[in-house]
Amino acid sequence: MRPGTCQRTKKIYMTLSRPSIPQGTRDFGPAVVRKRNYIFNIIRTVFELYGFQPLETPAMENLETLVGKYGEEGDRLIFKILNNGLSDPKNQDKARSAFENVLQGKNDKNLTERALRYDLTIPFARYVAMNHGQLTFPFKRYQLQPVWRADRPQKGRYREFFQCDADVIGSFSLLSEVELAHIYSTVFDKLGIPVEIRINSRKILTALAELCGGTGQMMAITVAIDKLEKIGLEKVKEELVQRGLEESRIAVIQKYLSITGSNAEKLTELKKLMGENETAKKGIKEMEYILDYKTAGFQPPLLVDLTLARGLDYYTGIIFEVKAPHTQMGSISGGGRYDDLTGLFGFPGIPGVGISFGVDRIYDVMEEMKLFPEEVYTGTQVLFFHAGELESKTAFGLMQQLRSRGIGCELYHEEARFDKQFKYAEKKNIPYAVIIGSMEMQDHTCTLKNLKSGEQKTFAQSELSAYPF
Amino acid sequence: MRPGTCQRTKKIYMTLSRPSIPQGTRDFGPAVVRKRNYIFNIIRTVFELYGFQPLETPAMENLETLVGKYGEEGDRLIFKILNNGLSDPKNQDKARSAFENVLQGKNDKNLTERALRYDLTIPFARYVAMNHGQLTFPFKRYQLQPVWRADRPQKGRYREFFQCDADVIGSFSLLSEVELAHIYSTVFDKLGIPVEIRINSRKILTALAELCGGTGQMMAITVAIDKLEKIGLEKVKEELVQRGLEESRIAVIQKYLSITGSNAEKLTELKKLMGENETAKKGIKEMEYILDYKTAGFQPPLLVDLTLARGLDYYTGIIFEVKAPHTQMGSISGGGRYDDLTGLFGFPGIPGVGISFGVDRIYDVMEEMKLFPEEVYTGTQVLFFHAGELESKTAFGLMQQLRSRGIGCELYHEEARFDKQFKYAEKKNIPYAVIIGSMEMQDHTCTLKNLKSGEQKTFAQSELSAYPF
Repeated sequence: MRPGTCQRTKKIYMTLSRPSIPQGTRDFGPAVVRKRNYIFNIIRTVFELYGFQPLETPAMENLETLVGKYGEEGDRLIFKILNNGLSDPKNQDKARSAFENVLQGKNDKNLTERALRYDLTIPFARYVAMNHGQLTFPFKRYQLQPVWRADRPQKGRYREFFQCDADVIGSFSLLSEVELAHIYSTVFDKLGIPVEIRINSRKILTALAELCGGTGQMMAITVAIDKLEKIGLEKVKEELVQRGLEESRIAVIQKYLSITGSNAEKLTELKKLMGENETAKKGIKEMEYILDYKTAGFQPPLLVDLTLARGLDYYTGIIFEVKAPHTQMGSISGGGRYDDLTGLFGFPGIPGVGISFGVDRIYDVMEEMKLFPEEVYTGTQVLFFHAGELESKTAFGLMQQLRSRGIGCELYHEEARFDKQFKYAEKKNIPYAVIIGSMEMQDHTCTLKNLKSGEQKTFAQSELSAYPF
Repeated sequence: MRPGTCQRTKKIYMTLSRPSIPQGTRDFGPAVVRKRNYIFNIIRTVFELYGFQPLETPAMENLETLVGKYGEEGDRLIFKILNNGLSDPKNQDKARSAFENVLQGKNDKNLTERALRYDLTIPFARYVAMNHGQLTFPFKRYQLQPVWRADRPQKGRYREFFQCDADVIGSFSLLSEVELAHIYSTVFDKLGIPVEIRINSRKILTALAELCGGTGQMMAITVAIDKLEKIGLEKVKEELVQRGLEESRIAVIQKYLSITGSNAEKLTELKKLMGENETAKKGIKEMEYILDYKTAGFQPPLLVDLTLARGLDYYTGIIFEVKAPHTQMGSISGGGRYDDLTGLFGFPGIPGVGISFGVDRIYDVMEEMKLFPEEVYTGTQVLFFHAGELESKTAFGLMQQLRSRGIGCELYHEEARFDKQFKYAEKKNIPYAVIIGSMEMQDHTCTLKNLKSGEQKTFAQSELSAYPF
């Protein structure tokens, strides 16, 4: 489908300012798309190897589906879509009062009833709630789609970005956690990024809160724990004092935060500290199951990190976070187990566990570490030079033979000086040129030039179709 | 990134109605995504074989980029995004007056400054205008992305749908048209859809208008021509009389519409009719160049259709339309040459030619003709049964060996009755099951069952990793 009218065109020249795109959004040119697809394809392939199935949901959801799911801050960052037909006289009164509601921070269907997807998890939950009758549980789905947030744009934070999620829903089995850990190590292994897969359990953090005056203390404690890396243990203690925690309990937290050693050592220390606390016992048992799940000698590089506290308001069991230790980048992936996602949509009691890959950050890490393979940068393999009408027709025929072999080819679009055609090949990073000039036409030959090495040879045209590019 | 807080959850149960998605949007479940990707991958692969490079633009464009490009009807169908932070007191006065403007059908940045992509052509033009300094011309790009239109939803028409465009921009060479015709035939050949590629030239229609009282008559004539199939020649003539065309000129149009025969015969007749008209000569010469461009004996199935008039307000040269004659479906793809697309964005004088695949219609045709291959429906190849903790660990190890060979596997998530596990395999359309029970554990064997044929055999576990699935 193609736009506009020619008359209109003229008018617009005059009026139009230099074109631009919205703040926080990006165009992805050929080279970047190829590199992003390289990452997407590896993630997608691994998801499929583990029996996850693709799902795609619409960019627009009903506003009511999204509102109230991401906290107040989140609600403010949802992009809402203006209803169409507001200028229709019979809608205007409704629209005006609707607008007043919106000015007061309320939502009103008469002004906006749709919004852009804010993450992939809520639309997934909505999908499962809508289709649970048809689905086979446990339902393993993956989803690679963009999401939109009205965040203030800054380095590495965009208003449109991709999420790559895999979730298993409808099973309590810890095998899911084991497999998700394997997916992490397989994906990052294929990408060539050395990673630490940090693991902790929400149950252990709950237990810690219970030991420190009940789960009411949870937020106070986790907020403090989150700051540990930044401000250090002493400052964390000061903050806990200010938050009114008793010395004795701060001492417990200090012990907790001071636990070090191997995974096994950490869990042994933890058992001593947590004693008979039932929640802790459950959490530790789950951690041990996953840590001990060796098969054929292989095990993902799991690292117990008792200070890991991500997504606390949401997760209920094991939580994951992946870091690339050789870079400045923070977390490049995370996830965990939740108890009741579809309950949000009136279909309660389905447990699940999921992980999410931060593709933009993974991309940056791969650039920083120069991990993209050479092939990624090549589209067209062979440029056929245009040396005249007849010559180019011969070239076209040979080109079609190579294309039928799956080799990307181009014929330069018009007769032109060779240096111009070489420049085109160079700019498009095309590794080979095939030249068929008047000489070659006479002898039914072609000249193949390797544009990297500069080496060239002339041989029968009939041999080209079998040439090992 | 994961949503919401648990406290909030409870509240929502009560208040939430049965979840749904916006009118005219769709969820794509696993089976549908696989089939759609099958189509996308074939189109993408062929685009790459012809040296087209991928481009992706943001879902949101600045409103001013889109408005005025699609005609008044189009402008009404653009989805606009509400600015955030309207409830902030310091924005409210501006917002109110902005809203009044919107009620009067104007746009106002203080209420909405962004909108959803309406097609892929204008964002492409905007991209070229923004980046022409860095681009290598001719620039050949393809783009597979969704677009959004506030159309009234109906069968086969959606508010979110994908477009697959390929454009060559920056060249007048008719080789582009030749290649696009080859792309059509290659894509539909790979998809297995027999097609007619109809071709006409905007220049010939201009010439016809010139012969009938000047290009002012263009709309009158083409509107009539477009109705030919529906209402027949007589009614078309009546309509032209009503539109005030003289008998003599109607006679010319009648002659034009009566031209039949092979491609060559049609063009011969056309030459007689158009005589010395320069525009006609140009158009016919271009058609002949493309029709005669045989290489290695191969030629796309081009069909001259002088009644083809699509996108008249926009195209300036050759126009294409693809039909699947063995189905009820109308056009499943179209395109053509335009003179000046980026001129819309202050960078005039770049010619181009492009085609667009109607993926939703292609999908329907493939369903109707049952053209999707069996493999499309299979994700996981092998389900490993869960027959106990120890057994499943052995299964897990073997499963990892198969995955490293690229074979998708799953281990049933928990110990369960075998009929339950068979049902899971059946529902997920998994072709093989591997069973390792206590017997197999003793003998270090596994039992492989082909779930289609029912045939099963037991052999050494060590042989499984090399088994030819």
